[in-house]
Amino acid sequence: MEPIAFFGLGHMGGAMAERLVDAGHDVKVYNRTPEKARPLVEKGATHVDHPADAVTPGAIVVTMVADDHAQQSLMNDEVLARLGKGGLHMAMSTVSPAAATAAVEQHARHGVDYLACPVFGRPDAAAAGKLWLALAGSDGAKQRVRALLEVMGQGVFDFGNNPPSANVVKLAGNFLIVSAIEAMAEALSLCEKNQVDPEGVYELFSSTLFACPIYKNYGRAIVDQRFSPPGFALAMGAKDVRLIRDTARAAQVPMPLASLLEDRFLRSLANDGADLDWTGIAKDQRESAGL
Amino acid sequence: MEPIAFFGLGHMGGAMAERLVDAGHDVKVYNRTPEKARPLVEKGATHVDHPADAVTPGAIVVTMVADDHAQQSLMNDEVLARLGKGGLHMAMSTVSPAAATAAVEQHARHGVDYLACPVFGRPDAAAAGKLWLALAGSDGAKQRVRALLEVMGQGVFDFGNNPPSANVVKLAGNFLIVSAIEAMAEALSLCEKNQVDPEGVYELFSSTLFACPIYKNYGRAIVDQRFSPPGFALAMGAKDVRLIRDTARAAQVPMPLASLLEDRFLRSLANDGADLDWTGIAKDQRESAGL
Amino acid sequence: MEPIAFFGLGHMGGAMAERLVDAGHDVKVYNRTPEKARPLVEKGATHVDHPADAVTPGAIVVTMVADDHAQQSLMNDEVLARLGKGGLHMAMSTVSPAAATAAVEQHARHGVDYLACPVFGRPDAAAAGKLWLALAGSDGAKQRVRALLEVMGQGVFDFGNNPPSANVVKLAGNFLIVSAIEAMAEALSLCEKNQVDPEGVYELFSSTLFACPIYKNYGRAIVDQRFSPPGFALAMGAKDVRLIRDTARAAQVPMPLASLLEDRFLRSLANDGADLDWTGIAKDQRESAGL
Amino acid sequence: MEPIAFFGLGHMGGAMAERLVDAGHDVKVYNRTPEKARPLVEKGATHVDHPADAVTPGAIVVTMVADDHAQQSLMNDEVLARLGKGGLHMAMSTVSPAAATAAVEQHARHGVDYLACPVFGRPDAAAAGKLWLALAGSDGAKQRVRALLEVMGQGVFDFGNNPPSANVVKLAGNFLIVSAIEAMAEALSLCEKNQVDPEGVYELFSSTLFACPIYKNYGRAIVDQRFSPPGFALAMGAKDVRLIRDTARAAQVPMPLASLLEDRFLRSLANDGADLDWTGIAKDQRESAGL
Repeated sequence: MEPIAFFGLGHMGGAMAERLVDAGHDVKVYNRTPEKARPLVEKGATHVDHPADAVTPGAIVVTMVADDHAQQSLMNDEVLARLGKGGLHMAMSTVSPAAATAAVEQHARHGVDYLACPVFGRPDAAAAGKLWLALAGSDGAKQRVRALLEVMGQGVFDFGNNPPSANVVKLAGNFLIVSAIEAMAEALSLCEKNQVDPEGVYELFSSTLFACPIYKNYGRAIVDQRFSPPGFALAMGAKDVRLIRDTARAAQVPMPLASLLEDRFLRSLANDGADLDWTGIAKDQRESAGL
Repeated sequence: MEPIAFFGLGHMGGAMAERLVDAGHDVKVYNRTPEKARPLVEKGATHVDHPADAVTPGAIVVTMVADDHAQQSLMNDEVLARLGKGGLHMAMSTVSPAAATAAVEQHARHGVDYLACPVFGRPDAAAAGKLWLALAGSDGAKQRVRALLEVMGQGVFDFGNNPPSANVVKLAGNFLIVSAIEAMAEALSLCEKNQVDPEGVYELFSSTLFACPIYKNYGRAIVDQRFSPPGFALAMGAKDVRLIRDTARAAQVPMPLASLLEDRFLRSLANDGADLDWTGIAKDQRESAGL
Repeated sequence: MEPIAFFGLGHMGGAMAERLVDAGHDVKVYNRTPEKARPLVEKGATHVDHPADAVTPGAIVVTMVADDHAQQSLMNDEVLARLGKGGLHMAMSTVSPAAATAAVEQHARHGVDYLACPVFGRPDAAAAGKLWLALAGSDGAKQRVRALLEVMGQGVFDFGNNPPSANVVKLAGNFLIVSAIEAMAEALSLCEKNQVDPEGVYELFSSTLFACPIYKNYGRAIVDQRFSPPGFALAMGAKDVRLIRDTARAAQVPMPLASLLEDRFLRSLANDGADLDWTGIAKDQRESAGL
Repeated sequence: MEPIAFFGLGHMGGAMAERLVDAGHDVKVYNRTPEKARPLVEKGATHVDHPADAVTPGAIVVTMVADDHAQQSLMNDEVLARLGKGGLHMAMSTVSPAAATAAVEQHARHGVDYLACPVFGRPDAAAAGKLWLALAGSDGAKQRVRALLEVMGQGVFDFGNNPPSANVVKLAGNFLIVSAIEAMAEALSLCEKNQVDPEGVYELFSSTLFACPIYKNYGRAIVDQRFSPPGFALAMGAKDVRLIRDTARAAQVPMPLASLLEDRFLRSLANDGADLDWTGIAKDQRESAGL
């Protein structure tokens, strides 16, 4: 098994890296706050002080960081030069298709293959190796990471050879999720203001027409008005909606629902702050209705 | 088993009445176009020429018609006077909560109990007795129709004693459905315009996060661009969105997504006509994006 | 000069009736709260206790009331029967085109001519005879009221022979006004949150590109955050937006800005109540931005 | 009079530079397409082949270019180093407040003062010296350009000492303009679909409540459906709406009308292309209504 550098040990990345370590991979990690690496080191991972030190020339780097900027900072020309010819960067963060497009070109200049593999799932799914993975890049790269994907995910969906395609899919998926949150928030406030019990409404739709994880889990949180602590923070949701809007702009695709969501997040951020869960937009909807 | 008058033999009502006849109920039917009653008559139902003739005093009337107006026309004071004291009207159509509120009062003047029981499901579910039923009204009325509901539905959700509550729930449910259609339409057009295969995107979300009937069935139609013949017509969807908006107005609930949907339906109606399926709003989204 | 019955003595109607009395017309008035008639009676008008008593057969009735319902209640079949053949009803209220269409037919059955003449302007303009008038109806009716219009308005715009046309124009005008309020509210909150002085921004646009009454007057109120007492109440603005949306629905015209405005008014009503001026939607925008 | 370097000779910049040359200023110009400089050269300006050659150390540079990127490319470190201590850059283009903020810092490193002075007005106003100017920057800089501003504009509005403030005001102004276009487009399509003559509606509002340049001029174009050749291109309008949205995002200001406008422009761009005038969004509205 070839050595792996893993960058980004947040709630998601930490759990994913742990899966790799547990599976016996040789994992070197770097994280801005080194304490987060401790559990991994205890299990056999190596922690380094500088990103480049984690990189074995010609081997694999996996990134799971917060945004475009974080990924670009880590995978700078110094690191890419060290990774070099034959190297592979599997980018699992939610970054913009535009950033992925730029990265493909930059990586190619160093002989590094860029494979996009954003993930669907929350930290508990990451810890259980139950993520859903959207994959796009060269066939060789896909082949090379197959064993890693099996350790981290319960299913892989292949979107061809152009890496940014997988990032578009990831954004589309997050758009579907946050649209469902908005729809439930509006529907439940309509019911509540008409003296109809939200609990019963939730039970009906989440066990019949909408009997699926997103409606069950997020619907539960909305009915319970359980908006903190955040599972996925409002500020992160706002960032994803921004990436969706930017991608829609670039492709000249009007997306009125995405626009509505961006304003919803802005109002939530301006009034409730960034520390709610992204289902917190339902709080804003309730207040809009005077509830 | 007490005699039943059944009004409204469209795709839904015809299938529902047939379930009742097959279960051995004594069903009298009336429909504006009498030919639609023929299959029921062959199975043992009685067809009458005037609505009032279908009504047995003190018995049950079931309605499954197109809109507020149709229900109000059928259940006029003449028919209600004949139904009279001890009579029960189970209203299964998608009517407005406002119409239900007015009907409760009007019915009470004739000693008739008004039970709201709108349904979720398409004609094939109606034919199989697999509808989901939202019920609200007096406990006595609920008890009295229990056997009928078992024949028509696979599950009943009880929303208390105030009939319009069930109509609010029905509208909330249809709002969730059409919101999901809108979200899928926007997401898929974003993918398509970025050269990402909609089929793969559909497979991902409909088998994982959104593995539920609405996303599976409507998503399939959108990806296939199969917008006619209509399963549920655009014009009917537009009517439901209008009822949602009217209910939101009356309760002072801003519902920006419902507003967006109303304009979407208006644009579809103005350009593509009323004969598409309501998933046809996805056609409008594709054209908006220049696809 | 032929006798005139004038119904509706609110801020607008009272001032308009006074102009007619001052000009020497024989005016009979009716108002639900009779005290409002006192100043007119002192100037020579006659107050009656029942609407029909104000009506001279074959003469003119002018209405300036709150909404469709108020106009329909006053101009009922009893009053129309008394007005009768040769009678003329000049309807100056902001009513829906649909109500005007229905009224034309109802009036015709009594031989009464229905002339639509909604007005633009606030009570001070009404008192000064400086209203702008949108006129539609038969040529004969227009000719017959010419002297009255000259007393009440500073200008008449003719929209042909179909009365509801003038009501569409009135709604379109109010839509332009409230759209301008929304635009100023959003623009000024953007400036304010960027530490740019709203006063200077107001001076720039209201003295150059937008040097016209609506931007000058409403912009002033928004910058001063002077939302009460109401010149035109939020609840009345909400009613007009509702009429606009209903008219757009009926004509299958998507109007996304009108939809946005309706939700804006609903949020204002739900949170700030009906007693603000309709510029109070700017308060909602400030709060949306966390100001 | 101190020497001036003028960059950007488009419809606006060319006319503004000509005013300066006509007023006797010593103007050196650079433009990517040199032919555009010919009329100026004939009047006494000097054309140079490289931007830096136009710059006199410690003197004034005026820019009037298409966007952030164009301004940043021209005012690069080489040009700024040459301009150097005591130099002044008066930036008149519509650039983002974020770009202005970054420029202030970059310029300061070279001892150059950055003065924001975006303009309102079309090319004919520029040619007549009738622009409206929004000014922000140091008091010294404002003093120094006073004579230039008098040549180019008919009025100056001062927004203090922080340059990006003027850019916020410029964006707020363009937002008001495009909001007015949208409102007129929706109002007129509502009238038209109700068989009401748009010409009469235009006359009413543009001569009364909205008797100001924006409604008169743009309203005229919309009624005449005169969307090309562009006075200000749809693509440029789309860019400005994008800057507005980006500024709103950064300041956490929900602007639902701005969001609606961005989708409107995206739909116009996707279907009608970039070459219409920005009033061309009215064409999209008509088509939305099936007109």
